[in-house]
Amino acid sequence: MQEIDRLIQLLARLPGLGPRSARRAALDLVRKRESLMRPLATALAEAADAIRTCSTCGNLDTADPCHICTDERRDPTLICVVEQVGDLWALERAAGFKGRYHVLGGVLSALDGVGPEDLTIAQLLARVGGDSPVTEIILATNLTVDGQTTAHYITERLAESGVRVTRLAHGVPVGGELDYLDDGTLSAALKARQAL
Amino acid sequence: MQEIDRLIQLLARLPGLGPRSARRAALDLVRKRESLMRPLATALAEAADAIRTCSTCGNLDTADPCHICTDERRDPTLICVVEQVGDLWALERAAGFKGRYHVLGGVLSALDGVGPEDLTIAQLLARVGGDSPVTEIILATNLTVDGQTTAHYITERLAESGVRVTRLAHGVPVGGELDYLDDGTLSAALKARQAL
Repeated sequence: MQEIDRLIQLLARLPGLGPRSARRAALDLVRKRESLMRPLATALAEAADAIRTCSTCGNLDTADPCHICTDERRDPTLICVVEQVGDLWALERAAGFKGRYHVLGGVLSALDGVGPEDLTIAQLLARVGGDSPVTEIILATNLTVDGQTTAHYITERLAESGVRVTRLAHGVPVGGELDYLDDGTLSAALKARQAL
Repeated sequence: MQEIDRLIQLLARLPGLGPRSARRAALDLVRKRESLMRPLATALAEAADAIRTCSTCGNLDTADPCHICTDERRDPTLICVVEQVGDLWALERAAGFKGRYHVLGGVLSALDGVGPEDLTIAQLLARVGGDSPVTEIILATNLTVDGQTTAHYITERLAESGVRVTRLAHGVPVGGELDYLDDGTLSAALKARQAL
């Protein structure tokens, strides 16, 4: 069956699905042909047509500029820099941030041959320069070696712009148990201890 | 973004994907719009149109009867009874069986209210009756309580047909280590020990 083999092959390329779970998913889809399989086909085609990358911040949306960049109620003086669109979504779900975003599209990585020109760093500098209203850049790259290298690089590049550069606080996750935390997080939380 | 939210919701209904991995999959799909997203949409729509259930054995195929039921080289005297199409696929991958199949579509379950009329047991009896060429039924239901109950029920229903009823051998899996096996498998393997 060419049709089902092709479907399984494509499903197996989704992150989180392997060959075995792709087969299970394909069988489940055929079983739910009208309630899941056809709606999913339609949703994929519609999303592929409708979704574009915001030319300002790199977010995914049906509009360009995206609804965050055009939202007048959001603070235009504040830009939060993230690696990927998924990170932007995570911050939006947390719903505490009312500024704008900038999606880098990855991190600097000597190993993977990713240089500054492969990321949207030039676009970020352009958003800060000239008569821009931006006064603070919050670096929210991941706490990996590459993420922190990227944060340092951007900090240096922003040095002469006069804009304030901050980063997310490091520490004990809310709901986290000390016993299960890695040493790095614990020592960071100790160093950044706060008066009660 | 309505389009991406709807896509994530549908992806999260696939077995093996939860809300978090559905978001990751959706982002990955948008990133691979032409190489994965559109082909997957097409493959889903094509498979939904093309695939049907074989009215003889219950297999999924683009033809009815399916290519296994119409394959002249396969032994028509032998029917292997499985719970689901996935089990049929697993046996086909093992590639040792050259008879035909019968997919029950589930197992008898008092708890879930599944009775004989919810499975294709009547169709199986019809395939055995009359001037049918079938001489042996291999019961390959799973080694669960419900699977074995179903096997017993089918054995009883087949008693007066005169057809030979067998089941898959139980024992130590090839490559399995005794230390990691459950007691049931070990004692079954001991009881069914074979002379060298």
